[in-house]
Amino acid sequence: EIVIAVEAFFDEVKEEKLLLHNKKVLITAGPTRELVDPVRYFTNFSSGKMGYAIAKAAKKMGAEVTLITGPTSLEVPSGVTVKRVVSTQEMHDAVMEEFHNQDIVIKCAAVADYKPAVRYESKMKKNKQDWHIEMEKTVDILESLGQKKEHQVLVGFAAETNNLEEYARRKLEKKNLDLVAANDVSKEGSGFGSETNELVLFGKDGTKKVLPLVSKDKAAEMLLTEVSELLD
Amino acid sequence: EIVIAVEAFFDEVKEEKLLLHNKKVLITAGPTRELVDPVRYFTNFSSGKMGYAIAKAAKKMGAEVTLITGPTSLEVPSGVTVKRVVSTQEMHDAVMEEFHNQDIVIKCAAVADYKPAVRYESKMKKNKQDWHIEMEKTVDILESLGQKKEHQVLVGFAAETNNLEEYARRKLEKKNLDLVAANDVSKEGSGFGSETNELVLFGKDGTKKVLPLVSKDKAAEMLLTEVSELLD
Repeated sequence: EIVIAVEAFFDEVKEEKLLLHNKKVLITAGPTRELVDPVRYFTNFSSGKMGYAIAKAAKKMGAEVTLITGPTSLEVPSGVTVKRVVSTQEMHDAVMEEFHNQDIVIKCAAVADYKPAVRYESKMKKNKQDWHIEMEKTVDILESLGQKKEHQVLVGFAAETNNLEEYARRKLEKKNLDLVAANDVSKEGSGFGSETNELVLFGKDGTKKVLPLVSKDKAAEMLLTEVSELLD
Repeated sequence: EIVIAVEAFFDEVKEEKLLLHNKKVLITAGPTRELVDPVRYFTNFSSGKMGYAIAKAAKKMGAEVTLITGPTSLEVPSGVTVKRVVSTQEMHDAVMEEFHNQDIVIKCAAVADYKPAVRYESKMKKNKQDWHIEMEKTVDILESLGQKKEHQVLVGFAAETNNLEEYARRKLEKKNLDLVAANDVSKEGSGFGSETNELVLFGKDGTKKVLPLVSKDKAAEMLLTEVSELLD
């Protein structure tokens, strides 16, 4: 009985030492899909791996984790609450519903930022030689979150192929974020679908922190450690 | 020794009785992807399951099978030669290279039939409210095959959401096919990603054969049995 009590005591101490103990963390992951007709759609190369790695790491660090994910072929980390969506609008609605009682929100999903202005009910027949698809902007989830932000720490991602720092800092300011994790998706080992990532973190205080090229699991841990320091 | 000789004799008989014994069968499967920029692309809901099922069934029926596949998350059936492609043009080139010495060619892939006219080298920034994407037709693989056809039995698929028979018969004639396997992808149990299929076969002699709703493995077997009857 003494042994059990001692073990319980140390478990409690250990748990309280976890960086995200009892914190509510919301993570979005994966791509979204925007349908042109019942068969065709517009999407991007996001695999969801980075977002799922962050969800797993946050859980391990003691957080209560909600993962809102677009279509991926990944397994949801155990102990994580999951909500599945297809389009950017659906992801927006799901995120907004959960936002108010979160401590940290990390928008890792690479949502489609344009969608076909018209969505056909039947499969479009290909009788035309050319086809102009009119696209319109989808709802900007991060901007909506930035406007609505109260106590939450808000983290965005910037996946770029060029002008990484410029685009990342502009996003940070425009969207009212606390931190941007930027990566050059055209770089070897740092792109969509890869098992590794090389993140550069830009803080709203002007800081810049270059993380090494590591596994996405490790990158997730390093990112969350930085984020935990931004909590009150 | 007598036993072994008898067994070998029966093995030979059994093998010769396989419907596609020693036949060369080429199958295309999955969707293709057409890039707008390094991050975004157009594609469709094809899972590749039907094409992979046909490859597996053809192998089982004694054929020498080549599978040319777009991006899928499926495992290649053992004993099948595989070639992986991304775009419709790449699939076209791979199919054309193999076409001349095939006995049967089944074009099960749901290739993208339009692609962005311009492909940007860097990720397009979303500074515009609207975006007109000019699309142009991709190369028509089935039409190219129909024009080049000599001894080969050529089978196409028609995945439709409406006017199934009309579209299927038009395809059969226009593309110079021997058989079209049509399915209504808006129907329960018959769509992309489903484990089952309900095929309607249209022959160039005007025949129509409605197959039952069965597993994709079973549908593949039934289709190949019909196709084997078209061999000389």
